[in-house]
Amino acid sequence: MTYCLGMRLNAGMVFVADSRTNAGVDSVATFRKCFVFDDPDDRIIVILTAGNLAVTQSVISLLEDRLGSSDPERSLYACESMYEVARLVGRTVREVYVQDGEHLKEHGADFNASLIVGGQIRNRRMRLFNVYSAGNFIEATDDTPYMQIGETKYGKPIIERVLTPQTPLIEAAKCALVSFDSTIKGNLSVAPPLDLVICPVDTLRASVRTRINDNDPYWQGLRKRWGEGLRNLFSKLPDPSWAQEE
Amino acid sequence: MTYCLGMRLNAGMVFVADSRTNAGVDSVATFRKCFVFDDPDDRIIVILTAGNLAVTQSVISLLEDRLGSSDPERSLYACESMYEVARLVGRTVREVYVQDGEHLKEHGADFNASLIVGGQIRNRRMRLFNVYSAGNFIEATDDTPYMQIGETKYGKPIIERVLTPQTPLIEAAKCALVSFDSTIKGNLSVAPPLDLVICPVDTLRASVRTRINDNDPYWQGLRKRWGEGLRNLFSKLPDPSWAQEE
Repeated sequence: MTYCLGMRLNAGMVFVADSRTNAGVDSVATFRKCFVFDDPDDRIIVILTAGNLAVTQSVISLLEDRLGSSDPERSLYACESMYEVARLVGRTVREVYVQDGEHLKEHGADFNASLIVGGQIRNRRMRLFNVYSAGNFIEATDDTPYMQIGETKYGKPIIERVLTPQTPLIEAAKCALVSFDSTIKGNLSVAPPLDLVICPVDTLRASVRTRINDNDPYWQGLRKRWGEGLRNLFSKLPDPSWAQEE
Repeated sequence: MTYCLGMRLNAGMVFVADSRTNAGVDSVATFRKCFVFDDPDDRIIVILTAGNLAVTQSVISLLEDRLGSSDPERSLYACESMYEVARLVGRTVREVYVQDGEHLKEHGADFNASLIVGGQIRNRRMRLFNVYSAGNFIEATDDTPYMQIGETKYGKPIIERVLTPQTPLIEAAKCALVSFDSTIKGNLSVAPPLDLVICPVDTLRASVRTRINDNDPYWQGLRKRWGEGLRNLFSKLPDPSWAQEE
């Protein structure tokens, strides 16, 4: 499994992806699932991937190979809008489906890919999409300013509680890390290192682009502080009226 | 969907079940999924159910109909151990499978049932089981002193953080309610009223047996306090070293 999270806030965008892949618990490995395509001062595009690794790696390879093209139907650097970017990514997923879909079916495997695609092109607004296996996609809005793919449930409650479009970028990044902490505690199939990218609005670049290893002091401190804080908060919850019946 | 949670602690057992059922989002209803079988001073058995409602209701009906039997192969009140109780529940699931399994398959529906079965019989120890659709089962141990069925992921992190076999019953009940709060925030298919049962060890009775409605003042206060506390805790997390790069 996998957990990836993208946020589209007034102040910019935050992306975090884990890097664990597994084909059964006896075949666990580390693979990058966060890809940054940046053409300085013109655009920054971030893609996070979940699902069948052979499928998503093919999608990324095809997109990378065609970056040099001037055809907006082929190159992420030639698309004129983020909507076109999402369509290009969707078409590329469909291309891999044509290549692999039937073969996967013959072997009893699902064609399974899910991608978070976000970014900004010069003079356009930031946009954040979730592209499905069928190549179609939805877009994040102010009502739900984030997208999750993969193992999404463990880490959703904290996002729902604290994230709004007004959340500052660093707060949002912390929220994302807490969401990953909850997920990693709950599910072996999600694990560090975590790839983190922060793109402030209208800068067309990543202000932060870092890989957080499990022994990273900030990550360790955050996990410890959050866990202790939760237990402390929990210990102060009032007793129910029916407690005395016991 | 559904969320049910059973805990087996040194001090006793705690059971909570939601009561939402849905066949698609346009067919939502309230059904009890928590059933208490108590024969005062002899035994208390609690069963929580998830999965196909027709299947789990049949299982409960058959178990109820046979309570008067003196045959330990048929009556929950005649079983000599909680292990026998779990086997009886499993056999009853299999009986419903024989009756309905093939018909469900013909209509493209899964035979899907999952039950938490816990309790204590006089002079025996408390035990907590998770009975599967196949009628087999696993038992909670000190390493993992709880069982979840249904929509389990949203509410797992808080349990993993605070619950140990040493947790007092009221603390455990609060932990269960916080776990339900996180789940209900994340998933429309889980909703109050919540049925809560607390059974202190060796008393062979329920000290608390209550239904918590959504407007219950304690439940509302707990949700508010927990939500505010989390946001407050979150706001005090330290900034990462890479924050200044922004």
